[in-house]
Amino acid sequence: MLLTILNVAGIAVFAASGALLGVRRRLDLFGIWVVAVLTGVGGGVMRDVFLGVNPPTALQDWRLIGMASLSAIAIFFFHPQFSALRRSVLILDALGMGLFASTGALTAVHHHTSGFAAVLIGITTAVGGGVLRDVLVNEVPLLVQQRDLYAVPAMTGATVVVLLQHGGAADGLTLIVGTLLASGLRLVAVRQRWRLPMAADRD
Amino acid sequence: MLLTILNVAGIAVFAASGALLGVRRRLDLFGIWVVAVLTGVGGGVMRDVFLGVNPPTALQDWRLIGMASLSAIAIFFFHPQFSALRRSVLILDALGMGLFASTGALTAVHHHTSGFAAVLIGITTAVGGGVLRDVLVNEVPLLVQQRDLYAVPAMTGATVVVLLQHGGAADGLTLIVGTLLASGLRLVAVRQRWRLPMAADRD
Amino acid sequence: MLLTILNVAGIAVFAASGALLGVRRRLDLFGIWVVAVLTGVGGGVMRDVFLGVNPPTALQDWRLIGMASLSAIAIFFFHPQFSALRRSVLILDALGMGLFASTGALTAVHHHTSGFAAVLIGITTAVGGGVLRDVLVNEVPLLVQQRDLYAVPAMTGATVVVLLQHGGAADGLTLIVGTLLASGLRLVAVRQRWRLPMAADRD
Repeated sequence: MLLTILNVAGIAVFAASGALLGVRRRLDLFGIWVVAVLTGVGGGVMRDVFLGVNPPTALQDWRLIGMASLSAIAIFFFHPQFSALRRSVLILDALGMGLFASTGALTAVHHHTSGFAAVLIGITTAVGGGVLRDVLVNEVPLLVQQRDLYAVPAMTGATVVVLLQHGGAADGLTLIVGTLLASGLRLVAVRQRWRLPMAADRD
Repeated sequence: MLLTILNVAGIAVFAASGALLGVRRRLDLFGIWVVAVLTGVGGGVMRDVFLGVNPPTALQDWRLIGMASLSAIAIFFFHPQFSALRRSVLILDALGMGLFASTGALTAVHHHTSGFAAVLIGITTAVGGGVLRDVLVNEVPLLVQQRDLYAVPAMTGATVVVLLQHGGAADGLTLIVGTLLASGLRLVAVRQRWRLPMAADRD
Repeated sequence: MLLTILNVAGIAVFAASGALLGVRRRLDLFGIWVVAVLTGVGGGVMRDVFLGVNPPTALQDWRLIGMASLSAIAIFFFHPQFSALRRSVLILDALGMGLFASTGALTAVHHHTSGFAAVLIGITTAVGGGVLRDVLVNEVPLLVQQRDLYAVPAMTGATVVVLLQHGGAADGLTLIVGTLLASGLRLVAVRQRWRLPMAADRD
């Protein structure tokens, strides 16, 4: 139950980030909706394809795309307010990433994958929608381009989810700790400008 | 049987649209062929991945890629004639979209998905190949960019297919009504320049 | 056993090609790692999705992503040396392509697909990672753009693998002949500048 609620919350946040990008690229209402939905549910669809869940949950449970659609419509009409709230968007995106890393990893554990696979599926769930969003609007994905840490927090959250589950923790506790850790680490990374090195120049 | 024939017809039309784009981008024969085949069968492969059909039909039944290859070769040699027939291409593309929306939704119904999932899988089958085509040649997909209605007709056709099947209609009737509705609506949308609004400016 | 070793060797080579592209695009260490891993295991993940192997092997067996990671780190620190060795990279890439075409086709045969499907899955395994790499850094994939033969050698190697298996040859012999044929043909094509025609101009 908590798994479903947190998953839907993550979809809403990510769909909003996709819709905002669509507005900036001057897409029409339908284009904005497509980008929002694919950003919102893309990571979960990849997770389900990897786990052999056919058809993917996003195609079975209308509430998921429904929530992404509400996000898209809200952004379509109220995007000036959201753009002003740049910092809120950053916080929401960090929260969405943490939610997806945790719920993705927990779903994989429930499907009895190895711990290693569960961590990777958590990361895929967390970053898949954003990569799809950027490829669709023809940009190099933020995932590979941005300097601030993004996948490292996702990996940390997913790893903790797997460890807590192997240690016998309840699903609710697992999700809350995993989400807070991933999202919190991401926010600290942005604020502190933690960055990874680039390769030495001159080749 | 009719399902197979209409599906192959859709592949031929979409593969031709991919090959034409390849010619314009000055790809060589092989590049044109790759784009044509992926455009022709891409939507169906996504449908099969979502339905858990392994391996996807396009990889099992050689006639599907065979037909896409014939389209690619025809365009390679006779593309000046086809380019002159711009309106025919538009009509053929609308027909292909309608065919895929209907056959995709019906295939999903045959796999006992929910009606909601069947509609979404119909849309995915109809638009998937075109998105793949545009991403491959590094363009923002027409699906999200163009102003004329495209996915709304696909959604309408797929929805009617699901409703007719739930009402007990035969497959043949279902496919014909669904295809005509989706394709017809698309053609009217192009001719009448039906468009969706963009988000208000100034953010 | 040989199948696993050759598969890991292919991953190392392809991951290195992805990492080199990441260095040239001035990505940071993490971006380079993401591109390297997706290039290295992308073709195999597509193969597994098509075959219904859930979750894909790359997510189950940590040695695959581990090897891709080692490649990424080696390129990150030593890329000037590798860039100087342009010819070695070309040779390694040809070897990786041959390895993936053969191991992909053989894996499909082991999953009892049709011969036609096995050839296509071999090609997909061989070219999938490279397409993903190019889409991620926002380029038209080399697969559709370059003039030198690439997929034709892959098709030849995969076809020979299927024929040898149907003729009852042992796995080891099959893999060695298929790999040598695909890789060798690729190298000859590059050296001899074998090319396919483009469509006639003027449309």
